[in-house]
Amino acid sequence: MSFPQTTDDSFLGGRVTLRQPAQGYRAGPDAVLLAAAIPAISGESVLELGCGVGAVSLCLNARVSGLDLVGVEIQPDYADLARENAHGALEVVTADLSEMPLSIRDRQFHHVVANPPYYLEKRRKKSEDVGREAAFTEDTPLSLWVEVAAKRLRPRGVFSLIQDIERLPEIMAAALPVLGSLEVLPISAREGRRPRRFLLRARKGGRAEFILHPALVLHMGDAHSVDQDSYLPEVKSVLRDGVALNFPSR
Amino acid sequence: MSFPQTTDDSFLGGRVTLRQPAQGYRAGPDAVLLAAAIPAISGESVLELGCGVGAVSLCLNARVSGLDLVGVEIQPDYADLARENAHGALEVVTADLSEMPLSIRDRQFHHVVANPPYYLEKRRKKSEDVGREAAFTEDTPLSLWVEVAAKRLRPRGVFSLIQDIERLPEIMAAALPVLGSLEVLPISAREGRRPRRFLLRARKGGRAEFILHPALVLHMGDAHSVDQDSYLPEVKSVLRDGVALNFPSR
Repeated sequence: MSFPQTTDDSFLGGRVTLRQPAQGYRAGPDAVLLAAAIPAISGESVLELGCGVGAVSLCLNARVSGLDLVGVEIQPDYADLARENAHGALEVVTADLSEMPLSIRDRQFHHVVANPPYYLEKRRKKSEDVGREAAFTEDTPLSLWVEVAAKRLRPRGVFSLIQDIERLPEIMAAALPVLGSLEVLPISAREGRRPRRFLLRARKGGRAEFILHPALVLHMGDAHSVDQDSYLPEVKSVLRDGVALNFPSR
Repeated sequence: MSFPQTTDDSFLGGRVTLRQPAQGYRAGPDAVLLAAAIPAISGESVLELGCGVGAVSLCLNARVSGLDLVGVEIQPDYADLARENAHGALEVVTADLSEMPLSIRDRQFHHVVANPPYYLEKRRKKSEDVGREAAFTEDTPLSLWVEVAAKRLRPRGVFSLIQDIERLPEIMAAALPVLGSLEVLPISAREGRRPRRFLLRARKGGRAEFILHPALVLHMGDAHSVDQDSYLPEVKSVLRDGVALNFPSR
């Protein structure tokens, strides 16, 4: 299977170009925010679970050079696009999270990152596109993503995830037995609005207290304005200029 | 055992007076915030787990008349003060959460409420006061508080809790299997600061999505001012005037 139509999309102000399916799951700002929040430094190894067309890993690669990047993707057509987009910067392995090859199960990484599907199977809306379904809905329980991440992390390694806020309790429950030093950064569209997404940072073997950070607000003003770009300056610099998204200090 | 010294303290602008130990665990604003957040209406039954001197139940009683209030407290001297403070408005049962008498285990309540000890046993600081230790530190795992609450709720009954933000992952993990429609309202001292407490609302048998509300901010300004009362007006009306603390609508 391959996609009937693809588009070439620009990320990080043109620093990254990704070919993605025109219909179906398409990487967007969430992937860029996650990439910006990964505290990786040159020389470290990074495993991305469910890498899709490679948006998170390749945005991270544009910000931090000298990383050893590996992505796992269950859908062969997305994995093919990721390989094409990576130009060698990302090793892409086509595999199910629960059946990863020995080449990955033998390794432990400084970082594991994931942007798992947001929607529960039961709430799935009809979609004509198989790729969209697999990327948006849940075949693999979220708890498995967290367990696999914890297993593939080196001691003191860091897990970074972005997810729909609805799934926060599940993620907490899954992370508590296998990861420590949890930090949650909620993401709100506008000041005072309920956050709809969150970034999680957790450390294998970490023993620091849990922190709920004040929400990251994306847009200025109270309502959407159609005639102007409304991202707050610090968010714009993350999305357009490839600046790191730092968590507030502990 | 009884307390060597007690004080008579005023809550809700004088609507409630509580006798409490001068040294040791003393009820404060957290108990008042929890009481204000309980969505109970006249005629309903409320079970408070770990009622101490009765602050939560008696503040609730001052706001909502015609409730059937029962409190469980493991420490006999605190239970005695609760009975004295209640003037008959609160039935106080001296018991461990894990060994409650049949009179309670036979019942299910419209509401269960709790303000469990905040600190982990391992972090306990030395204290000369046994009551302070038992109220601040943990003999009973938080997960048991949540499990007992779920068991004692009627179908569709509501659990309300206030707790240190550090314990949010544990509470989520404990609540997820036994309660639904979770809502978390973080509480920050000041705008933009990291929340240090949270209110949880959950419903037995609830199936609505999890909500993380924008934080409730307690104080005006960026720093503590010694020469004036800095509570925001809406918070002041909760703490001083006995107004309900409504969660934002779903």
